[in-house]
Amino acid sequence: MIKASVIGGTGYAGQELIRILMRHPEVEVVTIGTRSFSGQKFSDIYGNFQGITDLVCEATDIKELAEKSDVVFLALPHGIASKTVTAEVLTKTKVIDLGADFRIKDIDVYEDWYQTEHFNHSLLNDAVYGLCELHREEIKKAQLISNPGCYTTCSILSLAPLIKNNLIDTGSIIVDAKSGVTGAGRGTVTDLMYSECNETIKAYKIGSHRHTPEIEQELRLLNGQDFNILFTPHLVPMNRGILALSYAKLTADLSLEAIKAIYREFYNDEYFVRILENRMPETRWVKGTNFCDIGLSIDPRTNHVIVVGAIDNLIKGAAGQAVQNMNICFGLAEKTGIDFIADFPI
Amino acid sequence: MIKASVIGGTGYAGQELIRILMRHPEVEVVTIGTRSFSGQKFSDIYGNFQGITDLVCEATDIKELAEKSDVVFLALPHGIASKTVTAEVLTKTKVIDLGADFRIKDIDVYEDWYQTEHFNHSLLNDAVYGLCELHREEIKKAQLISNPGCYTTCSILSLAPLIKNNLIDTGSIIVDAKSGVTGAGRGTVTDLMYSECNETIKAYKIGSHRHTPEIEQELRLLNGQDFNILFTPHLVPMNRGILALSYAKLTADLSLEAIKAIYREFYNDEYFVRILENRMPETRWVKGTNFCDIGLSIDPRTNHVIVVGAIDNLIKGAAGQAVQNMNICFGLAEKTGIDFIADFPI
Amino acid sequence: MIKASVIGGTGYAGQELIRILMRHPEVEVVTIGTRSFSGQKFSDIYGNFQGITDLVCEATDIKELAEKSDVVFLALPHGIASKTVTAEVLTKTKVIDLGADFRIKDIDVYEDWYQTEHFNHSLLNDAVYGLCELHREEIKKAQLISNPGCYTTCSILSLAPLIKNNLIDTGSIIVDAKSGVTGAGRGTVTDLMYSECNETIKAYKIGSHRHTPEIEQELRLLNGQDFNILFTPHLVPMNRGILALSYAKLTADLSLEAIKAIYREFYNDEYFVRILENRMPETRWVKGTNFCDIGLSIDPRTNHVIVVGAIDNLIKGAAGQAVQNMNICFGLAEKTGIDFIADFPI
Amino acid sequence: MIKASVIGGTGYAGQELIRILMRHPEVEVVTIGTRSFSGQKFSDIYGNFQGITDLVCEATDIKELAEKSDVVFLALPHGIASKTVTAEVLTKTKVIDLGADFRIKDIDVYEDWYQTEHFNHSLLNDAVYGLCELHREEIKKAQLISNPGCYTTCSILSLAPLIKNNLIDTGSIIVDAKSGVTGAGRGTVTDLMYSECNETIKAYKIGSHRHTPEIEQELRLLNGQDFNILFTPHLVPMNRGILALSYAKLTADLSLEAIKAIYREFYNDEYFVRILENRMPETRWVKGTNFCDIGLSIDPRTNHVIVVGAIDNLIKGAAGQAVQNMNICFGLAEKTGIDFIADFPI
Repeated sequence: MIKASVIGGTGYAGQELIRILMRHPEVEVVTIGTRSFSGQKFSDIYGNFQGITDLVCEATDIKELAEKSDVVFLALPHGIASKTVTAEVLTKTKVIDLGADFRIKDIDVYEDWYQTEHFNHSLLNDAVYGLCELHREEIKKAQLISNPGCYTTCSILSLAPLIKNNLIDTGSIIVDAKSGVTGAGRGTVTDLMYSECNETIKAYKIGSHRHTPEIEQELRLLNGQDFNILFTPHLVPMNRGILALSYAKLTADLSLEAIKAIYREFYNDEYFVRILENRMPETRWVKGTNFCDIGLSIDPRTNHVIVVGAIDNLIKGAAGQAVQNMNICFGLAEKTGIDFIADFPI
Repeated sequence: MIKASVIGGTGYAGQELIRILMRHPEVEVVTIGTRSFSGQKFSDIYGNFQGITDLVCEATDIKELAEKSDVVFLALPHGIASKTVTAEVLTKTKVIDLGADFRIKDIDVYEDWYQTEHFNHSLLNDAVYGLCELHREEIKKAQLISNPGCYTTCSILSLAPLIKNNLIDTGSIIVDAKSGVTGAGRGTVTDLMYSECNETIKAYKIGSHRHTPEIEQELRLLNGQDFNILFTPHLVPMNRGILALSYAKLTADLSLEAIKAIYREFYNDEYFVRILENRMPETRWVKGTNFCDIGLSIDPRTNHVIVVGAIDNLIKGAAGQAVQNMNICFGLAEKTGIDFIADFPI
Repeated sequence: MIKASVIGGTGYAGQELIRILMRHPEVEVVTIGTRSFSGQKFSDIYGNFQGITDLVCEATDIKELAEKSDVVFLALPHGIASKTVTAEVLTKTKVIDLGADFRIKDIDVYEDWYQTEHFNHSLLNDAVYGLCELHREEIKKAQLISNPGCYTTCSILSLAPLIKNNLIDTGSIIVDAKSGVTGAGRGTVTDLMYSECNETIKAYKIGSHRHTPEIEQELRLLNGQDFNILFTPHLVPMNRGILALSYAKLTADLSLEAIKAIYREFYNDEYFVRILENRMPETRWVKGTNFCDIGLSIDPRTNHVIVVGAIDNLIKGAAGQAVQNMNICFGLAEKTGIDFIADFPI
Repeated sequence: MIKASVIGGTGYAGQELIRILMRHPEVEVVTIGTRSFSGQKFSDIYGNFQGITDLVCEATDIKELAEKSDVVFLALPHGIASKTVTAEVLTKTKVIDLGADFRIKDIDVYEDWYQTEHFNHSLLNDAVYGLCELHREEIKKAQLISNPGCYTTCSILSLAPLIKNNLIDTGSIIVDAKSGVTGAGRGTVTDLMYSECNETIKAYKIGSHRHTPEIEQELRLLNGQDFNILFTPHLVPMNRGILALSYAKLTADLSLEAIKAIYREFYNDEYFVRILENRMPETRWVKGTNFCDIGLSIDPRTNHVIVVGAIDNLIKGAAGQAVQNMNICFGLAEKTGIDFIADFPI
């Protein structure tokens, strides 16, 4: 059994991670670390764990956990992981960081977008970007994995085959993404109150969301070119799910069928990426799962390709992919413990 | 492996059942029977099954399925099962009926509440009422199991310890229950359109809902007395979940602690009934699970006990309990394949 | 034109009040008082007022407002109004208090349920309980009006004809009420976050909600007897609306038609109380309006009458009734400025 | 008083129209025409009209209504209005058509997108496209007004100043629009059931929605050029509201402030178009109103301008604009009876 600990287990992503790990056949959850709820039973904070576990939250640190864990998951706000993960910690345990600290390889870009200093230049290059479908070989050998963001996972998987095969004008990429409210975390702010975000939709951080440089970094790796994308997120009145529409001008003269074939080939062996044939993705069909559903369309009137991607932001966009990363780097079958079917109706 | 078939697999309960059975370690789903979608791939009807199964729906009948199935689940409107299940069918397969046909033992009561003739008097007595926590021993030996209704499951489990121990005035019982919209099924009627039932609540069938005599039948068995209850259901703008508040005058002079102790004893070995200590049930903590959460309160000012019960109407109230019944009568560990933790946020 | 000011104008009830007053043909809003948002444009806090008003919030006090206002509305947490409203203030302006401070006439009862000292015994008797349909004559002459709570308005209007006409066993009254999330106000607490209360329902403060003694006080006035009721509120995933089911044992042998006739007579001239004939109340039909819809049912099997009441908690349950009170005590037609039709779909 | 009749008054737009007209100070609603509900009281179909009106729905025709109405509103599926509106009818009454039949001036384009024959070539040129802010002078003199679609209203108002002033590459326009569920009407189809579209989002008719040629027609009029746009609608789990993001490459080197100034000038006298300064539009702030809120952003990294537009699809996108058109062509103050403030929380 893999001994796993989670630091930051009382946020939404951390809680989801613990839920998945508790039902994972090869994992034992040893410690739930959290500052805010230290000393409380986890099932007193989250009533779904009533009768499931008697674990008590602990105010612990990563050094201590490294001694007794085979893997430590970090589900923390950015700026903390880079201060606490050290080379010494990594000699004792694998670390999978669900935060942003190790995602962006260019320190200037990170500091510019996050408006903060980066505290750990030395480990940045060792960290593997944990988008499983694109970096599986590196993940297998990684000691420190940087789990991608939710919008990024959906956007990169949507666009990768087009970029890799040079089918679009990379100067024309627009990603218009819509997210459920859990994407904003569990902090209590007025805008996230039920009566404030129920029955309404808004766009936010247009062109300035921090997942933008992360998407660009990964897409640029695919064709070696430098380009910017325009990324716009929205807040939608639902708990979970991301639907991202990626628009780009086609440079190749290809039929929809030909493009679909390229996607099917690109994701040929990928269990968690489903290229849809007869329908377009809807978040309900991926909710509660680790799938990324992708649909394709062409608009001949404007010569655009439109890629529709859908994920569950807390699973493929966070906790599920973190476990997928764990499965890969511990040599388990990749879908062990995360082979969920969406529970419908939601 | 248990070979299982489902007839009526494209309603909400049937679909949920198939989802559970597909991940059950001891089950193989052999046939999905449905008249309406015959010839279609199940995953074309329900996109969550994309990449999970290639099963095609068949317009089959129970006789045919009995030949090749160890168990046949029926998820049909009332009035059909009683016409098609026969003694001969039951010699070849076990049948678990999620509909109402075999729930009510008194034919007059059935015909009065359902306003239809009952077509199968002979099998009615053989059918075991599949409320697992109350009828486990009979279920073990049953060939035909009548799976309880959703409101009934929640109401009976809420009130059973009080009735069994003669703690309340049975002439004073009121059950005020609230259900999510899936409880009404998948039929397309105006009142169930999104824009009609979103952001509003209503009571319906006050004192006249068909689950009333079913609740009464089971509660009366517990103390051998004859009494009526007042049952009121509501439609709440959420997909799933039932919250039932049961009110009754206390006849015994008992503290809240004493009553809780009685409940804990009554449900001592029951994994799926959680008697809550420090919080009251909320449907979010049971959603997607087979749990029934129960909370207790006393109002000394009016000398009432209030029992709060919560279930997922499609799981403990339908498909989950059906599988629990299957587990029992096939001698499996009772929680096999249905030991879910609620996925939170929903 | 009536010069009106609002203190506490940035909570939900206060904001709703300002919206109504701004479109009231006989009112000019002179000041919006608020501590938290002082100096900000009201339309910067609430974007619905963009282009409607340029009023800037002020940190003012009631003494100052009394000088320049014909009426001052208070929409504040309990405990503040009783400290600031004085006999002197009331010589200069009328005060309509949407809070709880002057609702309960028995100081011991108030202090017991609110767990706080009452600071203004002298004005308590002068304050008129502003449930318009029951206290219209007193309201006409009132200088200080205590606007009822939301649950109370719905519960009292539902039960008044039964009590007044001695048709029920007052020892058997149970009110099971369901409220939208705005009933809890705009404070930022975890339980009211979108992802926490979306898609779930719970009961809370069973038998211990502070509206209980207020309902009892008013119902007891109708028959001069002493009795307690059992009141249970619920939180429902919708923004607005209260649906209250009132249950009681019938003592009179009356048909449903006879009871309806009694209700129609009791509310004969009341524009804002609609006794429904062919349907039961649903919150969608009163949402955004000052109506209280009432439906009636009898359960002969248990000899209970069930009254279903529905209001909009922020209008008939708060701001709308406050304006109705204003209309009455300023001699305007009672429905001036509050004669809304529910905007459907919500 | 203007005598107004509505044909198709039991759909969502028709019902909303009747609600507005019933509170309009210069209007008397004389007839509600509907085939499906003929003979029923309108308040029995829509409970919000209980106590408001006793009008009974009639199966009437436009000829009959023309005799007794100053204006007839048509809220019907496409293909009916063009068959029934005649030159003779228009000699007797003004007609405001909320359907699509007279929106598109080019018959080939209409027949191609709607896949049906157009039945009334002769009146097509007489019909005035009723987007009030752009066609006010023609509307004043019109006898037949074609009320714009919901997506179109929002998209055209969002883009008009950019096109008119030649600030963007018209070959790069993408409109990504999100709509609440009422946009799909009141027909009972599985996809619009509560449990099917709650808690999920999807894109539909990508590049093929019928509002596309309507948007193009009106935008092309503004600069006299020929170009296509890429339009994508989404279904969002909320009742009402459209949020449309319009993306285009800037051809002019302009600051955000300069673009805002151009918008402010373009919409200088327009009460119902609000150019936001310090926030971005959210549908909650326009819900229940006739406003179109517009926000502007520039992404210098990709040289795009992003326009965010928000309307209530049933008001500015249908019934409200229809009344605005009526006000204009009857010489009333334009905001008479439609000067709503959004009721918040929704």
